[in-house]
Amino acid sequence: MNGAFLDQIRWGPDGLVPAIAQDASSGQVLMMAWMNRAALAETLASGRAVYWSRSRRTLWPKGETSGHVQRVVEVRLDCDGDALLLKVEQIGGIACHTGRASCFYRRWEDGAWEEVEPVLRDPRELYGDPTP
Amino acid sequence: MNGAFLDQIRWGPDGLVPAIAQDASSGQVLMMAWMNRAALAETLASGRAVYWSRSRRTLWPKGETSGHVQRVVEVRLDCDGDALLLKVEQIGGIACHTGRASCFYRRWEDGAWEEVEPVLRDPRELYGDPTP
Repeated sequence: MNGAFLDQIRWGPDGLVPAIAQDASSGQVLMMAWMNRAALAETLASGRAVYWSRSRRTLWPKGETSGHVQRVVEVRLDCDGDALLLKVEQIGGIACHTGRASCFYRRWEDGAWEEVEPVLRDPRELYGDPTP
Repeated sequence: MNGAFLDQIRWGPDGLVPAIAQDASSGQVLMMAWMNRAALAETLASGRAVYWSRSRRTLWPKGETSGHVQRVVEVRLDCDGDALLLKVEQIGGIACHTGRASCFYRRWEDGAWEEVEPVLRDPRELYGDPTP
């Protein structure tokens, strides 16, 4: 793959840019994660969202454990070239590791963060329960 | 304002978190910017989006020059507590300094970033033209 389009991105000092995933049909914002050059190249080549896990310091093919893969419908770059927007089809309808559709399930209400989105599936079902 | 809800946010090492602005009616993702504690506190107190400008190193009340203020409908926090989602009413229908509705106006197509959103208003009208 021609890497010139990767050079048009203003990667941060850590080599990363924020990547927003939005449901291509409903418009719901599902999550925000990070990409480095390899993650974006892999995403574009495979048609599935691949992020960079800052905690594990490795490429993170979204849904590799849960099966909740994100099929990429389109990728957009912002005016400053330092943020990406992925419009995706969220397989399973669950983007969040808590079993919710979206990671943005807490809403600010009167000085507190209130959980306002339902858990659609028990995360122990998604990732396996280490305790018997 | 009680600051406890600010402590629930996992501010980055630079004291910032990404903040996504989404049109509350259409669902269009308008922009991504950054907030520090003061920016979020000011946003919640005023009901208008206030970001932190990394380039100018100052609070940035969105629309202060252009008039394209963002009225905040709701604020959401993600599962990890390190990203914010603002649902806003975008006054003037233009979020981008290029005069477009959204900053995410470039789409990846066959190895290039193609501009796919129209300029709705000449940015020189929005910010004034320094040349006579």
